Amino acid sequence: MARNIKVEELFQTPVEKQRIELVERKGIGHPDSISDGLAEAVSRALCREYISKCGAVLHHNTDETQIVAGRSSPRFGGGEILQPIYILLVGRATKEFEGVDLATESVALQAARQYLKNTLVNMDLERDVIMDCKLGTGSSDLRDVFKRDRIPVANDTSFGVGHAPFSELENLVYNTERQLLTDLKSRMPGIGEDMKVMGLRDGEDITLTICSGMIGRYIDDLDSYINMTQEMQTYVEEMATRYTERNVKVCINTGDNLKTSSIFLTVTGTSAEMGDDGSVGRGNRCNGLITPNRPMSMEATSGKNPINHIGKIYNLLSTQMARDIVKQVPEVQDVYIRLLSQIGKPIDQPLVASAQVIPKEGTSFAKVKAEAEVVMDDWLSNVTKITEMVIKGELDTF
Amino acid sequence: MARNIKVEELFQTPVEKQRIELVERKGIGHPDSISDGLAEAVSRALCREYISKCGAVLHHNTDETQIVAGRSSPRFGGGEILQPIYILLVGRATKEFEGVDLATESVALQAARQYLKNTLVNMDLERDVIMDCKLGTGSSDLRDVFKRDRIPVANDTSFGVGHAPFSELENLVYNTERQLLTDLKSRMPGIGEDMKVMGLRDGEDITLTICSGMIGRYIDDLDSYINMTQEMQTYVEEMATRYTERNVKVCINTGDNLKTSSIFLTVTGTSAEMGDDGSVGRGNRCNGLITPNRPMSMEATSGKNPINHIGKIYNLLSTQMARDIVKQVPEVQDVYIRLLSQIGKPIDQPLVASAQVIPKEGTSFAKVKAEAEVVMDDWLSNVTKITEMVIKGELDTF
Amino acid sequence: MARNIKVEELFQTPVEKQRIELVERKGIGHPDSISDGLAEAVSRALCREYISKCGAVLHHNTDETQIVAGRSSPRFGGGEILQPIYILLVGRATKEFEGVDLATESVALQAARQYLKNTLVNMDLERDVIMDCKLGTGSSDLRDVFKRDRIPVANDTSFGVGHAPFSELENLVYNTERQLLTDLKSRMPGIGEDMKVMGLRDGEDITLTICSGMIGRYIDDLDSYINMTQEMQTYVEEMATRYTERNVKVCINTGDNLKTSSIFLTVTGTSAEMGDDGSVGRGNRCNGLITPNRPMSMEATSGKNPINHIGKIYNLLSTQMARDIVKQVPEVQDVYIRLLSQIGKPIDQPLVASAQVIPKEGTSFAKVKAEAEVVMDDWLSNVTKITEMVIKGELDTF
Amino acid sequence: MARNIKVEELFQTPVEKQRIELVERKGIGHPDSISDGLAEAVSRALCREYISKCGAVLHHNTDETQIVAGRSSPRFGGGEILQPIYILLVGRATKEFEGVDLATESVALQAARQYLKNTLVNMDLERDVIMDCKLGTGSSDLRDVFKRDRIPVANDTSFGVGHAPFSELENLVYNTERQLLTDLKSRMPGIGEDMKVMGLRDGEDITLTICSGMIGRYIDDLDSYINMTQEMQTYVEEMATRYTERNVKVCINTGDNLKTSSIFLTVTGTSAEMGDDGSVGRGNRCNGLITPNRPMSMEATSGKNPINHIGKIYNLLSTQMARDIVKQVPEVQDVYIRLLSQIGKPIDQPLVASAQVIPKEGTSFAKVKAEAEVVMDDWLSNVTKITEMVIKGELDTF
Repeated sequence: MARNIKVEELFQTPVEKQRIELVERKGIGHPDSISDGLAEAVSRALCREYISKCGAVLHHNTDETQIVAGRSSPRFGGGEILQPIYILLVGRATKEFEGVDLATESVALQAARQYLKNTLVNMDLERDVIMDCKLGTGSSDLRDVFKRDRIPVANDTSFGVGHAPFSELENLVYNTERQLLTDLKSRMPGIGEDMKVMGLRDGEDITLTICSGMIGRYIDDLDSYINMTQEMQTYVEEMATRYTERNVKVCINTGDNLKTSSIFLTVTGTSAEMGDDGSVGRGNRCNGLITPNRPMSMEATSGKNPINHIGKIYNLLSTQMARDIVKQVPEVQDVYIRLLSQIGKPIDQPLVASAQVIPKEGTSFAKVKAEAEVVMDDWLSNVTKITEMVIKGELDTF
Repeated sequence: MARNIKVEELFQTPVEKQRIELVERKGIGHPDSISDGLAEAVSRALCREYISKCGAVLHHNTDETQIVAGRSSPRFGGGEILQPIYILLVGRATKEFEGVDLATESVALQAARQYLKNTLVNMDLERDVIMDCKLGTGSSDLRDVFKRDRIPVANDTSFGVGHAPFSELENLVYNTERQLLTDLKSRMPGIGEDMKVMGLRDGEDITLTICSGMIGRYIDDLDSYINMTQEMQTYVEEMATRYTERNVKVCINTGDNLKTSSIFLTVTGTSAEMGDDGSVGRGNRCNGLITPNRPMSMEATSGKNPINHIGKIYNLLSTQMARDIVKQVPEVQDVYIRLLSQIGKPIDQPLVASAQVIPKEGTSFAKVKAEAEVVMDDWLSNVTKITEMVIKGELDTF
Repeated sequence: MARNIKVEELFQTPVEKQRIELVERKGIGHPDSISDGLAEAVSRALCREYISKCGAVLHHNTDETQIVAGRSSPRFGGGEILQPIYILLVGRATKEFEGVDLATESVALQAARQYLKNTLVNMDLERDVIMDCKLGTGSSDLRDVFKRDRIPVANDTSFGVGHAPFSELENLVYNTERQLLTDLKSRMPGIGEDMKVMGLRDGEDITLTICSGMIGRYIDDLDSYINMTQEMQTYVEEMATRYTERNVKVCINTGDNLKTSSIFLTVTGTSAEMGDDGSVGRGNRCNGLITPNRPMSMEATSGKNPINHIGKIYNLLSTQMARDIVKQVPEVQDVYIRLLSQIGKPIDQPLVASAQVIPKEGTSFAKVKAEAEVVMDDWLSNVTKITEMVIKGELDTF
Repeated sequence: MARNIKVEELFQTPVEKQRIELVERKGIGHPDSISDGLAEAVSRALCREYISKCGAVLHHNTDETQIVAGRSSPRFGGGEILQPIYILLVGRATKEFEGVDLATESVALQAARQYLKNTLVNMDLERDVIMDCKLGTGSSDLRDVFKRDRIPVANDTSFGVGHAPFSELENLVYNTERQLLTDLKSRMPGIGEDMKVMGLRDGEDITLTICSGMIGRYIDDLDSYINMTQEMQTYVEEMATRYTERNVKVCINTGDNLKTSSIFLTVTGTSAEMGDDGSVGRGNRCNGLITPNRPMSMEATSGKNPINHIGKIYNLLSTQMARDIVKQVPEVQDVYIRLLSQIGKPIDQPLVASAQVIPKEGTSFAKVKAEAEVVMDDWLSNVTKITEMVIKGELDTF
């Protein structure tokens, strides 16, 4: 059956040329990102468990982790958690299959604790965190879609959104967090995983406002703290030149009041230890960014099952489609993908697969259209490849 | 101090003229909307309590309600909840002020139970719901911003987004849910509050896919069910002619399988009774819609305090600004507002207040620019009016 | 099969003639008693639900309610709960039977809330209490004992203990709480349900130490409070003369410090609102008392299923046996019953049914022995009568 | 001030000579014992934390841990937990002292997890257990009793009970569990910590009914299981000869049905993994036993603070007193101690300190009385020694 693919030309100032552009990325230790990461870690662990015990992924949806902030007493050279962070893993999962009882909650718990251990290296899981779990069983109506030998049908009437390529600012914001938390942190362990990078471009001037939770045990005193933030600033300013020739101003922890020593200091590296709750699906989209100059989906990508959950699959798929179109169709300046499912219909047959293309100046939209359609049709023919990539951990979700 | 207001002209096909447009609205009984509603009800109750006991709103942030679905056994003519829905109210709130202990948790609990009673009229709060509550105390650093005699400073580096006017499809989707759940439901009590309206416009053809949880006790049998959905369809088709002259196709509960009687039947009117969890901030934006053809903010508007929480104030404010610009500047075809704060700066002085305007054909942008700036500057001068409107319950948040 | 009934003569100073005797009763609003009452209310509701839906009581055990105290701000003429009491209903229950899903959690929740409403009349269930519920499914091995057409087998190797008759002090302590909370409270609503009566008899002198949580809204000021406690004292002193000719001294709220107004004032009538947690099985034995001069069982009677749970059935049964022996065998001064089961054996065939009898002076033990054996054998032959009485609510459990 | 010490002679058949005697001990892995152990571990950790941070033990009471059983799939050679055991630590603790915030919840969490790790060596804390914690703040009225330079006043009107010496059966039951879980388990790791030893003496015949949860991973098959229980039986029979010359019959896991392989097999060594909930204060008294032929207190000894909580101190103290009287007054056959406090009075001045003594035949009660009074008065003069011993971990509480 032919697919309902609609490629239209979009007459629009490309984002790169709009005057004001905003881009945000929440770091992996931000409470919302922790929730996303836990939700996805649990889903991946369940996929592996289901495949290992039953030969196929079974119905589940664990996209609702809730983090309730603790209370802490950060200090230079130390500090401690007073009241543990409370984390509630929430979702649905198949607990029994053809007479076999499945260890869904235990698998979820273990995966979540392991994820936290790997992600927040300064957190003491024995005293800083209470990890709770409420996994219900799913609606039985959905269970029969998980058969292996045919294309799954959509679990919902829902849509996914993607775009490509990244603008300069998008690249810059994304990589600022990534390199601070991998490269610089390896030499400067006092940088906490809880980071927020807000990029504002006003014409040719970029301002990066970075909010970064520092870790008390690695910092001797206020002077060291000030030195650290200055070093971070210099690092980002230099790094920025690799991504843009525009003017870049970097502001780190502008909320600090150095006179009153009211600064962003933590014990564990995340503000979830004190005052900041977190939820799945409220932070980065699956491309790693929040981009109010671009179309976005509200669907949480993390934690949903990768078999038939449109909110996950179509977000990942549309992002892949957009990137491939840009790669394979050089005439494309910007492309926006929207994929809409209808509940109960095969996921390779969306109600509409829409691409909006801004061609580069002086190019032919007709050619672009034809080639973009091919890329989209190919991806839809191979939609279950997304499922495989998710299970293998090849696709980020936040 | 002059404000950093930037109004630019946007060269872009207006959404109304793009080929593909998607618009979604989650009804007030959708698990995500219930979370939004509870979060906002709790915040409003705390505002009232704080004002009554302390003369001013104190620091709080209750934007993280988590709903864990229950288990139910829906049936025509009846049905029952087997396992109650579990609802966890999450957030921060000031519990003591100048020596007075404040009943934050009790006020929150009562407000949440009252909201649920008013919103889901078929839910039996004595047996269908467990309402739990974890409200921590906030970061003390934030507390001094709640002084009454000056403009509060931003609690975060964050942004809000708004647009106007609504497209035809936006109007249609919004009003479909509203009128089904107010007008038609008054005559047809079997319509559940859990509804999802997905609008797709492909050129001149609109498809409304409506997913609506029906309430078993008001429906005798499958025939009655089918009659009901047909009546709903007719109702929406007629209603639609008031909003558009385009072709409108209405699909209701397309996921149903009438042969196997696998239909969207509920006991209480919400799928939270069986299988669908819910969170704050994952559904409708503060204008009541999810619009992937428009810029959006990821910030949850519901539940945040209306004094200094940018994620709430700037979303509401930018929506008000956009609507006023359209009202007062007739040359505006479409306007997009983005307001960006910087933590610690007064909320009437955003880091940038950006408007992107698509003027109507044949009009002067220069005039539009000047008038839009006035509207924006006026609103920023009176930013605390948003606070007042929220407390009075004059602004919807989802 | 003959039963292993052993009646022995006990050479012992009867409690009534020992010098020191201690007896305690916790009132129905004491946090431990609330837990007992909730556990039993839930079990009774489940029994009714199972009978109504399946024709027989199914396996359950709900003997583990946990109360976590709230926080309150009591005041004369008012007061309020600041943080709700958190109550967790815990246990096991059959959730599915021959293809029928059973509403165990919802039934439990409703029964518990109803019990609380009836028992603590000044508690506002909308804002003062969070009622949570964790009911697991039971061990499937136990399920087949619930067949209706034969004597159930014991679920455990466990024992029950009972004695009769009550001593003067036991009668006095029991009735003090009962009459204060029924008769006097009807005229003096400020008496809270949370009461503890501690009776000490030293020879011919009895001291009743009564700890009683008063309810602020019914009391104007400290003078009224003092008047109330004095009126209560007078009431108990007069009442005591109906139960004993010994000297009775009554002390009410001796922990109060009137100078600092540090008194036992509450909002709701129970100290669970502020600082006192509660658990099942830690208060009164099934005869309503705690009696360290008597043999006791540690088993919680409340909340266990009345079909095969020895910890419940044998405590109730031994108490009934003891009372019947005293009634039917006038030569008995004191009798102590101990019934020991062995897991997997029919409950009418205890491993041992032991009676220790102190005959009245000058009577024949041989006659007593024979008659006591008959009473015990009769009761064991009709052991399921205990089950019926429990389900009908004819037997108190605390 | 002279103490109200009352020593009376008890005319009574000593337990050793009564026909029927019952004694029970729950092993350290029984869900009720785990609760006791966790409660006490948390209290001890808080004592240490308070002393370390504030120089004195502060008010706390953590005597209410609730265990909600999980779900497991035990198997020979392996098995796994399907749903983690949920453990809720409950109580009150001081969280702030003279401006210092104290890490009460984190200390409690860490101590509880550590205790579990040490006690249930086959439990995987990363996937088998959810440890939750709800510690409120205490009633402020109680706080001033924790001053260091004088005798604390009683927190409650309450009593403690103790007796000595142990009967043969008491010794036998106690040591059966101890030696199985230390000596034999060191060679036979398949013995689980969840054990219940029920001793029945009928004249000269003793029956020990032992219920012992075996650990699947150490047992190959049903034959190995049967061999193990037989080896345990032989071990106990031999051991018993060191404690008694009476006939001893040993029954292990009589509830097993070998034909249907319905046996007491576990994954972790405790039935809390599947179907058995647990609470504090419902198992062993502080002497390690449940003895329905002896006076007992209902008060939970574990988890209460050792400074002023009568329910703990007087139970431990009366047991120490009884043991010392037996040691120092050779004419004593049996002694029963009961100590009753009155709220607000110094704990070295009980309302009554009662001893009931059965002298050995042919001895003088007068001499016994005088000497017992000295022992009791000495202990009351040094009552805070109990506090010290508790903090140092020198006194068992269950």
